[in-house]
Amino acid sequence: MNNTPIPLGPKADKATVRRHNLSLVLRAVHDAGDATRAAVATRVGLTRAAVSSLVEQLLENGFLTEWGKTSSGQAGRPGTVLKVARTGPAGLGVEINVDYVAVCVVDLAGTDRVRLVEHVDNRGVSPSEVLGRAAQLAARALASAAEQDLTPVGAHVVVPGLVTGGTVRQAPNLGWTRVAVEGLFAQSLSALAPARRPLPVSSDNEANAAALAELWYGAGTEGVRSFLYLTGEIGIGGALVVGGELLRGAHGFAGEIGHMVVDPDGPLCPCGAHGCLEQYAGQAALLAAAGIETTAGVLGVAELQRRVRRADPDALAAVERAGRQLGCVVSGAVNLFDPDAVMLGGFYRALTRWLAPAVEHELALRVISGLWAKDSGRLRAASPLGDAARGAAGVIVQEVLADPAAFADRGDDD
Amino acid sequence: MNNTPIPLGPKADKATVRRHNLSLVLRAVHDAGDATRAAVATRVGLTRAAVSSLVEQLLENGFLTEWGKTSSGQAGRPGTVLKVARTGPAGLGVEINVDYVAVCVVDLAGTDRVRLVEHVDNRGVSPSEVLGRAAQLAARALASAAEQDLTPVGAHVVVPGLVTGGTVRQAPNLGWTRVAVEGLFAQSLSALAPARRPLPVSSDNEANAAALAELWYGAGTEGVRSFLYLTGEIGIGGALVVGGELLRGAHGFAGEIGHMVVDPDGPLCPCGAHGCLEQYAGQAALLAAAGIETTAGVLGVAELQRRVRRADPDALAAVERAGRQLGCVVSGAVNLFDPDAVMLGGFYRALTRWLAPAVEHELALRVISGLWAKDSGRLRAASPLGDAARGAAGVIVQEVLADPAAFADRGDDD
Repeated sequence: MNNTPIPLGPKADKATVRRHNLSLVLRAVHDAGDATRAAVATRVGLTRAAVSSLVEQLLENGFLTEWGKTSSGQAGRPGTVLKVARTGPAGLGVEINVDYVAVCVVDLAGTDRVRLVEHVDNRGVSPSEVLGRAAQLAARALASAAEQDLTPVGAHVVVPGLVTGGTVRQAPNLGWTRVAVEGLFAQSLSALAPARRPLPVSSDNEANAAALAELWYGAGTEGVRSFLYLTGEIGIGGALVVGGELLRGAHGFAGEIGHMVVDPDGPLCPCGAHGCLEQYAGQAALLAAAGIETTAGVLGVAELQRRVRRADPDALAAVERAGRQLGCVVSGAVNLFDPDAVMLGGFYRALTRWLAPAVEHELALRVISGLWAKDSGRLRAASPLGDAARGAAGVIVQEVLADPAAFADRGDDD
Repeated sequence: MNNTPIPLGPKADKATVRRHNLSLVLRAVHDAGDATRAAVATRVGLTRAAVSSLVEQLLENGFLTEWGKTSSGQAGRPGTVLKVARTGPAGLGVEINVDYVAVCVVDLAGTDRVRLVEHVDNRGVSPSEVLGRAAQLAARALASAAEQDLTPVGAHVVVPGLVTGGTVRQAPNLGWTRVAVEGLFAQSLSALAPARRPLPVSSDNEANAAALAELWYGAGTEGVRSFLYLTGEIGIGGALVVGGELLRGAHGFAGEIGHMVVDPDGPLCPCGAHGCLEQYAGQAALLAAAGIETTAGVLGVAELQRRVRRADPDALAAVERAGRQLGCVVSGAVNLFDPDAVMLGGFYRALTRWLAPAVEHELALRVISGLWAKDSGRLRAASPLGDAARGAAGVIVQEVLADPAAFADRGDDD
């Protein structure tokens, strides 16, 4: 990684350098929110002349816009404030989950400009039907984006399961095995929203996207660069962020906290093993323990929240018990990874107030660094439901920020 | 990380660039084993003239040596083979464990040139006495190193516990709390082996050093860049290597797999929690389960090995049970972290043949990626006992390789 020599002589490919520096300048404006050319030059360590030339190109290609003058009031353009464009290139995120589908269009600044969620039971439905439904939602989102002069340059589809090389290897709670998710989605979408150039489609695990949304857009991760993200759904998704980057594992399958074991002789999990955490602290297990119809989905979670709010003893006991079991497993994960924080997402978010005491009890008792005492504030509620779609759209936006030149001619296409 | 601009103009500090390139050249020779100047130039992407000048400095300062001529037979120096020096700068590693102390001197090529191990029960002995004993062993190692013209430029002390900022925060199995390990060791050593310039002392967790030894010097990690390392001692140490680098966690406390929970209502652990893995698969627990005196240390492990070898039913049952419990916890760690391999170190190494079937059974059943089937070869025996000391010495060697200029004037000192 660090083995690249600092070039002593010339020989560095000028086009490559310029492309790299275009990204540096765009990112500098993006990260600052707004900035003058002079501030950008200071920040990235290039000359003002070089920055001006790069900014010109970014303005022409619609990645940046100019706003008014700064109060420091030097005449002419150098004092003009730059912002990333609110029109043009954008990202489309698509989240397939067990009981909903969500799509989101995010602009270059990271704002979610379109968001559509459809509650639907995807269990027992064929992958192509589910992905067809998701493509319909996506087509509606693309139409709304077009009305706002936004042009998504890629779609990122996320699924609660093991995803690699464009294929869902296994998504136990959807009942999917070896589903070519990218191809199926692209096919459905191009039939619904024909385009001169078909939208490139990529894919990943849903918890990864939710964790990235938390990292990029969440309020709870301010200053936190390493965290464990848990998302309570029908199953339990997990993702690890280390030093501001997703830890993907050697084969892209890291973060499967829902299949850590609570009791080797416990109930059978759809994954084939006994006693996985999902069987104790997943949505169905928790609703069942509280005496609520387990197929009620989001309505069931709302009902559970109502019951704990009015101190229903069965509901409180169920949440407390799930919290203890979750706490034991999360303590193990914290002992292994030593993160700064643990974020509770998905339906855990709505229950954090009641879950947290039991989880924190175990953390305080079991984490041997001693950094997880009850008042440590390291256990936090994460972003609201559906943000995996925003994180997925953000993945596309990050691709644009990393190499704007690669997307320079896409803006006016369709 | 990637936000450094590729410098368009000059302005890069020439001394810094040269220092960086000295390391590049030294590492290139180190990694290749031996190399001509021309091969080095190709590998690092610098001109042959630049490489020759850097090589000259590295030869003068004793980091490199020249050997014979290559068969390709161009006349003069360019065809001479370079190797890293087998004399001069070296690393001193010191491993404090519960029932032994080990020291190791490693040369720049990574060979362990001195190795001393003293079996001793450190439980209930004061930290200053233990560190004094380690310093005696280190002084003997330094004398042996001097006889071989090796000059350790730093000592790295590793301890089975949480180590940060030169202090052992907690080492439950040694009974240490808040021990200023670096200061105490440096003090003892300078009294025993006075030097014009005292040896700089650094410190870390013992399992981290053992994992690094496995990464740098182990045979089992050939081509493996991400692995979980487990070391069975009185306690159970753990470390995570991701993409060839130690994953330290946000506060340096990652890898504490010994305190992942098997049963929340299980036996009390010295850490204060109940049912930690150590209480099931640590040395004392395993010996007790097999009916062997738990304070027998290495002799106890040897006895256990003898008994499983002759198929003693109690011993086999104890190892099999520990393997299942270890397997459940390790499966959870693999689901979370998705490594390429799991390495069994410490006393597990001697028992791998009998432990592995049970551990592999759980891995095959519980790891949802499906990559850990019984014949996957991903569970492996690690390097022999004591290699944490070699890894610790290697940490110093890596510091020299990373910035030889910082150590250029140390060679002839004492």
